[in-house]
Amino acid sequence: MDNQVFSGIFARAREQHPLVHHITNYVTVNDCANITIGAGGAPVMADAREEAGEMTGFAGALVLNIGTLNSGIIESMILAGKVANERKIPIILDPVGAGATRLRTDSTRRLLDELTISIIKGNAGEIGVLAGAEAKVRGVDSAGISGDPVTITRTFARETGITVVMSGATDIISDGNKVLLVDNGHPLMGRISGTGCMASAVTGVIAAVEKDRLIAAATALAAFGLAGERAAAASRGPGSFKPALFDAMAELGPQDLAADARVRSA
Amino acid sequence: MDNQVFSGIFARAREQHPLVHHITNYVTVNDCANITIGAGGAPVMADAREEAGEMTGFAGALVLNIGTLNSGIIESMILAGKVANERKIPIILDPVGAGATRLRTDSTRRLLDELTISIIKGNAGEIGVLAGAEAKVRGVDSAGISGDPVTITRTFARETGITVVMSGATDIISDGNKVLLVDNGHPLMGRISGTGCMASAVTGVIAAVEKDRLIAAATALAAFGLAGERAAAASRGPGSFKPALFDAMAELGPQDLAADARVRSA
Amino acid sequence: MDNQVFSGIFARAREQHPLVHHITNYVTVNDCANITIGAGGAPVMADAREEAGEMTGFAGALVLNIGTLNSGIIESMILAGKVANERKIPIILDPVGAGATRLRTDSTRRLLDELTISIIKGNAGEIGVLAGAEAKVRGVDSAGISGDPVTITRTFARETGITVVMSGATDIISDGNKVLLVDNGHPLMGRISGTGCMASAVTGVIAAVEKDRLIAAATALAAFGLAGERAAAASRGPGSFKPALFDAMAELGPQDLAADARVRSA
Repeated sequence: MDNQVFSGIFARAREQHPLVHHITNYVTVNDCANITIGAGGAPVMADAREEAGEMTGFAGALVLNIGTLNSGIIESMILAGKVANERKIPIILDPVGAGATRLRTDSTRRLLDELTISIIKGNAGEIGVLAGAEAKVRGVDSAGISGDPVTITRTFARETGITVVMSGATDIISDGNKVLLVDNGHPLMGRISGTGCMASAVTGVIAAVEKDRLIAAATALAAFGLAGERAAAASRGPGSFKPALFDAMAELGPQDLAADARVRSA
Repeated sequence: MDNQVFSGIFARAREQHPLVHHITNYVTVNDCANITIGAGGAPVMADAREEAGEMTGFAGALVLNIGTLNSGIIESMILAGKVANERKIPIILDPVGAGATRLRTDSTRRLLDELTISIIKGNAGEIGVLAGAEAKVRGVDSAGISGDPVTITRTFARETGITVVMSGATDIISDGNKVLLVDNGHPLMGRISGTGCMASAVTGVIAAVEKDRLIAAATALAAFGLAGERAAAASRGPGSFKPALFDAMAELGPQDLAADARVRSA
Repeated sequence: MDNQVFSGIFARAREQHPLVHHITNYVTVNDCANITIGAGGAPVMADAREEAGEMTGFAGALVLNIGTLNSGIIESMILAGKVANERKIPIILDPVGAGATRLRTDSTRRLLDELTISIIKGNAGEIGVLAGAEAKVRGVDSAGISGDPVTITRTFARETGITVVMSGATDIISDGNKVLLVDNGHPLMGRISGTGCMASAVTGVIAAVEKDRLIAAATALAAFGLAGERAAAASRGPGSFKPALFDAMAELGPQDLAADARVRSA
């Protein structure tokens, strides 16, 4: 891939400053808000049934994250999602813990059934379970997957028409046809809570300004991974890594992506 | 204004260590708790209908923040607010996103109708919408206001009997008669989530120990803005700014306000 | 006590990487997740009635924290707690603010009645109130206790069969028979929100791998206190202390406990 593509899209996000509506969990919500700002977006969190749809009416993207879901939140997600679909703005779904409990698996399937999702991003276990592969989820962490991750990702994308991101040391992204691999990132990202959720938040910002879902997801994951690399260099451990990650995300410019994005075709 | 006034009030907050009851959003709640401690208060968050009123019964101030409201939370706010009014402790209202959705605008009006609010603090868009000016709110951010902000703030305060704070690069505070302008602050405060909410939290701490609402709000905003200035000098970006802000708030002493508060009459 | 005991248990937590299910408050939940990771565990937060019990089915320990409780959350705690009891995994209860409101006191008593709790950890006021001593709680802070804290802790443990931790500058731990005192810790831990909750989270990680409740609690509090001491040395104030605390917790090794745990018998 030509890094200029990612660089140009990232510049557009900073220029357009899209409003990103998050219906998300209460564990990592503050991180999601701050990384959204860092990536160039304006976050708004609103999960009440009474306003979820109305708020989506003003947004450039909708991020649905089931990290601490309950049945009421799913209803709000459906309401907001229908508005997003009517307005043809992208929905990014982060099926946190799908495969761990029936509620999470079933709720994810319901969202996939009732809404047109643009991008779904999960770890190997989550995506594997949803794709019908042999996979396991332990709490909210992947506990392994059988079979070739690239094939599983591409097949799941082809069958659903959704751009699928299987996050990991190398992120695998497919629109059902092409597959992109993103090598940016750092092991410290796996040692704090919330990096998966933040990756979805950044994807929301970028997808709000770029219609090609595959390219949007690759841009987001390369940018976030690159911020992680730079933050790691400025950190003593996972605690100091988090503020450094927000610093790095905010400092990241299009030229950084042009120079250091590591995206390749599978 | 004589900075000794602010300095003396701030010293009193540190001495009296008031309990501040917050019914607030789940996005910035941790920041609100920590800045309350930093400003000299003791935070308690309790939003259940079953205990909201009882908890307010022990508090020195009540902070109501509608950042992630729903109808249940509004009921708890009303219950707690009635206790605050009976006990004549101040209520600080932060109408996050009022003007963005009907739920937020209507809920704010209901709180204004059913409770005696001491201080309302919002950005230009939020205050503008509530004041009936031509103003816009995008998510939880101000998207501009028509007319003179000072006049709008003063008129809204006069009509409601509430001390109004319109936050911004220069904060405008009015009790309907006098207008104070606070120049303390730093642009980094606008680049993280939660500074608006934290300003309201600090206002809760100060209002708990100072009956003059105008002076209390000015003291709080000068102190918080000053902490922001000092934190900015110790930061690499918005990520490292946040821990630095809590450091600076905790370190701030009355003598700092005496030396560096920048409050003027309009 | 021989520090090698604590050291060995701590090493086991890092090796076994237990899944710890938290049903907790939305104020400090992110801190609880990150400290769980830092201590060697894998956190999962799930409070919906529809999945609470199922999630506990996979966990090595269950941490119940009533910091922002409501009646729905208590039901989820009961459901999850019954699964924990059936599976004989430890339940750690943090009765945040018990004694401050009837809801908190009554809910704590209900949890104590309906579940078999392994370890209860609170400040002097909370434990004092629950033990029937003359004690006061102001918001979520202890406002003092009459009588000898060691006697109160031991008696409460003996009467309930629960290992009791009364946290403070020196933590007092008793199983009703023996009493251990943990001197590790630093005053900065009292100047941020969430250290009490984090101590309970770390206790969950350790109790998941060590059946002796008294020793498990002492190991957890010594480890967390030691992390606090090291973080304090790397901090400018309470704001920078928090990331430093996560760094220190993650860096802490069994050899650190062997060298610097300060646990003594009362």
